[in-house]
Amino acid sequence: MRWQPDAVGRLQASALELFAERGYDATTVADIAGRAGLTRRTFFRHFTDKREVLFVGSEQLLQAFLAAMEAADLDAPPLDTVIVGVEALADIFGPERHQFARTRAAIISSCPELHERELIKLASMSAAAAETLRTRRVPGPVATLAADTGVNVFHATFTRWIAQDDPAAFRRILHEVLRTLSSLIAHHRSDTDTAALT
Amino acid sequence: MRWQPDAVGRLQASALELFAERGYDATTVADIAGRAGLTRRTFFRHFTDKREVLFVGSEQLLQAFLAAMEAADLDAPPLDTVIVGVEALADIFGPERHQFARTRAAIISSCPELHERELIKLASMSAAAAETLRTRRVPGPVATLAADTGVNVFHATFTRWIAQDDPAAFRRILHEVLRTLSSLIAHHRSDTDTAALT
Repeated sequence: MRWQPDAVGRLQASALELFAERGYDATTVADIAGRAGLTRRTFFRHFTDKREVLFVGSEQLLQAFLAAMEAADLDAPPLDTVIVGVEALADIFGPERHQFARTRAAIISSCPELHERELIKLASMSAAAAETLRTRRVPGPVATLAADTGVNVFHATFTRWIAQDDPAAFRRILHEVLRTLSSLIAHHRSDTDTAALT
Repeated sequence: MRWQPDAVGRLQASALELFAERGYDATTVADIAGRAGLTRRTFFRHFTDKREVLFVGSEQLLQAFLAAMEAADLDAPPLDTVIVGVEALADIFGPERHQFARTRAAIISSCPELHERELIKLASMSAAAAETLRTRRVPGPVATLAADTGVNVFHATFTRWIAQDDPAAFRRILHEVLRTLSSLIAHHRSDTDTAALT
């Protein structure tokens, strides 16, 4: 067997190229392995199926997010704790990852099955964040709302990051999203909300 | 053929009973029809499969939500417009629906396939709300964030409504959730956020 430097990286790059060229459904594992100059067997040593190529980083992402939340000041307000977690993702979504993230997102939005998997990933992230907040004695319903809000902020940041051309902008965009959210809430003052204050 | 008063309602009630008793996976369409005193053929006249029994109201829900958003004051801030839509759902999630919603939620959380379908439903609701905001000249990224935030508020309200015992509490809980959200954002003032203001 030949020595295979960075087989995972080569398989990922080949898969992304092929998904973009031919579509996700029309690409087989054999195609991916062939393009990378590797065998199907090598592919299956690293991934369970072709979908996993696109989601292999999700677990590390989740762990980085939760580790940062756990390291946050215990006195931090709930949403701050979640945002500390999102801040940690700025290190992962650095300039070197911009092109990959863009290509990956285009593939994911082209295929309902992948899009659903992405939604489930975000929901798991939110559930884990809520659980982390509850272990920090944040009451359940507040924990869920803070977690969902923080994961929304992450999702909005990520979506804007890949839609624009500055690969280093993740952190700046995160701050913009937080300001937009503050302003949305600050300007929210409907009749019903006023009625609720009585 | 016998006259079948409210076949849909009877099939729904039977399905919920059986899903709760035996589990979703172990229940067949024949079981559901049998319990309702109807035939499989009648079942398939109203539903495409057993899953649809649980999601048949989703489309009306979405339409009521969007219709209320479209009727909202054109000068309303973006989040208010979405919340007007959520307010309209308070009429649908009235006291008579509390027990059904509770039982349905318990079944959905017991089955990953159903839970995924529920996530997709919420994501569609958010995408449709964002589109409605964009037609009202709200800039794209703000529209997405406001829509996601509003749908979060709906989801948090719904979750609390079914977790507590007052069937008439949907609107009151909605207002509580809005206050919790305001307070989460108001208390959010991390270092990074302060840095962003410079």
